Amino acid sequence: MAEKITNTEEKKGTWLTFRPDIKVLDCTIRDGGLVNNFNFEDDFVKAVYNTCVEIGVDYMEMGKIVDKKVMDPEKYGPWNFCEEEDIRRIVGENNTDLKIAVMADIGRSFKENILPKEDSVVDMIRVAAYIHQIPAALELLEDAHAKGYETTFNLMAISKVSDSHLDEALGIIMESNADVVYLVDSFGTYYSESIRKLTKKYLSAAEGKNKKIGIHTHNNQQLAYANTIESLILGTSYLDATISGLGRGAGNCPLELLMGFLKNPKYHIVPLLKFIEKYIVPLREQMHWGYEIPYMLTGQLNEHPRAAMKFIDDKETDFINFYYSLLDSQE
Amino acid sequence: MAEKITNTEEKKGTWLTFRPDIKVLDCTIRDGGLVNNFNFEDDFVKAVYNTCVEIGVDYMEMGKIVDKKVMDPEKYGPWNFCEEEDIRRIVGENNTDLKIAVMADIGRSFKENILPKEDSVVDMIRVAAYIHQIPAALELLEDAHAKGYETTFNLMAISKVSDSHLDEALGIIMESNADVVYLVDSFGTYYSESIRKLTKKYLSAAEGKNKKIGIHTHNNQQLAYANTIESLILGTSYLDATISGLGRGAGNCPLELLMGFLKNPKYHIVPLLKFIEKYIVPLREQMHWGYEIPYMLTGQLNEHPRAAMKFIDDKETDFINFYYSLLDSQE
Repeated sequence: MAEKITNTEEKKGTWLTFRPDIKVLDCTIRDGGLVNNFNFEDDFVKAVYNTCVEIGVDYMEMGKIVDKKVMDPEKYGPWNFCEEEDIRRIVGENNTDLKIAVMADIGRSFKENILPKEDSVVDMIRVAAYIHQIPAALELLEDAHAKGYETTFNLMAISKVSDSHLDEALGIIMESNADVVYLVDSFGTYYSESIRKLTKKYLSAAEGKNKKIGIHTHNNQQLAYANTIESLILGTSYLDATISGLGRGAGNCPLELLMGFLKNPKYHIVPLLKFIEKYIVPLREQMHWGYEIPYMLTGQLNEHPRAAMKFIDDKETDFINFYYSLLDSQE
Repeated sequence: MAEKITNTEEKKGTWLTFRPDIKVLDCTIRDGGLVNNFNFEDDFVKAVYNTCVEIGVDYMEMGKIVDKKVMDPEKYGPWNFCEEEDIRRIVGENNTDLKIAVMADIGRSFKENILPKEDSVVDMIRVAAYIHQIPAALELLEDAHAKGYETTFNLMAISKVSDSHLDEALGIIMESNADVVYLVDSFGTYYSESIRKLTKKYLSAAEGKNKKIGIHTHNNQQLAYANTIESLILGTSYLDATISGLGRGAGNCPLELLMGFLKNPKYHIVPLLKFIEKYIVPLREQMHWGYEIPYMLTGQLNEHPRAAMKFIDDKETDFINFYYSLLDSQE
């Protein structure tokens, strides 16, 4: 069967077929790490890894590759730094079909944090950047590409950016060696109509550039899963998800929902259900994430969720006051 | 401004305009009543009513009009029966713009449970029926129509029905005097693609029949809100929602999310936020509803959520066993 899929009409599936270009990327540890400062126990990370292997996930993001000179390893767990020995403690030589990804943050991750490919079990470097960081991000991405890694460019917070700036940004990014360019809904603010427009914009910008488009969503308005499948139907190939939506604030597209939608027989939901019973049910007693009213409000108002995270951490419930404070901050 | 909207091109809104044909129906007490056997305190029901008035909701469904000979008033609260005196205790003469709706169940509600219109503060009778109950449902609906009520036909569990049977059913229903015909996703099983196809089917069947289309969703796959806005974009006019999604199993489309999407200045979110703080936050300590893994599984497998409700009530967490038992029951 033809594995090669272009950004055009070939990418059609029906509810009884599947598209081989679809790749699922689990970012439970990385986006979930934003909730607990990357302090996951090895046992948990290893269980996520084993589950990803068993259920046919294509990539697992182990965390960030922040430089320890920039953030304090006393305050942040190993998955904020993803040193090679930490990753290998979990995956060994990773003799599986699951590929390993890590995320680089501009200003916090540098070329020296990326080993030569032959010394690493990492397969993919994902570069996350705001629009003003594009030059620095491209420099890091090209270094990773030259070292032999697959690369993605995750342009963040685009809902705060004008159409013309976004077009310009995509024009530049599509000239890079990034293998995948991600449509990222950082604030969980987009409705399906916007997701469709943006997906078409990204696909169109990628046309002829030998790139795939990916999508990363947040669940502020209970649309993370809906928008992910909306985008994939139009031709997005790389789908980010986290187990039970574990991730910053309202969390992400839940992997188990996505598994229910995807028809490729390589994907299996049962080991994922086992992981959820064993690890997520007890974890919900210790960590808090997922849709709540304050996240809905920041999503509706296209704001970063940090104010909502503080409001919830402080166990406040005066939603009206919170709502007006968000409106005031937009003036 | 022209208030009259047909089922065609006139129904277009953009994100800065609004469609006057859109009507929001709050069914918090009715669908929420399925969680607690309709045992809401008067104070709670009155607060829902006052909130609906303040935030510009168009209809509030007070509950069901089940005959007390069929179900035991010792076991079910007043909102399962909605006798006139109970409703008036909450709404008085209802001198507001909010219309009052109640739901009739086939086999449990009869003509004698529907007062002459002049003796009632109820404005709308919603008739809920399975496909084999259509003749009985139409008899009840026509009686309500003849008495002077607005009427809706809510055909349930259509995901278990063949396309040809559904077409036939819609053909019959569209010849009735129902003012609104509802697209109902009883099991929370539909993806946006199916919702779009079904919305077009319902709109097309209603063409020239002087009817509006409504939508009622369940949140088993976190798609209740997404599917509601997807359907409304295509021309659905009546939108069911419940406060914080309060409703059977995974619950419904959350009213506060819908309020964030609708741009008609008559709708206000702030009093709704106040209600949520005062009533929903404490209620969550006593009642359980909303998305959970077992509801996801019944939704993915197009099954009634009753097995999931029992699983959750029994505080079980063996999701794999539950999943296989659902598969077995489909054999």
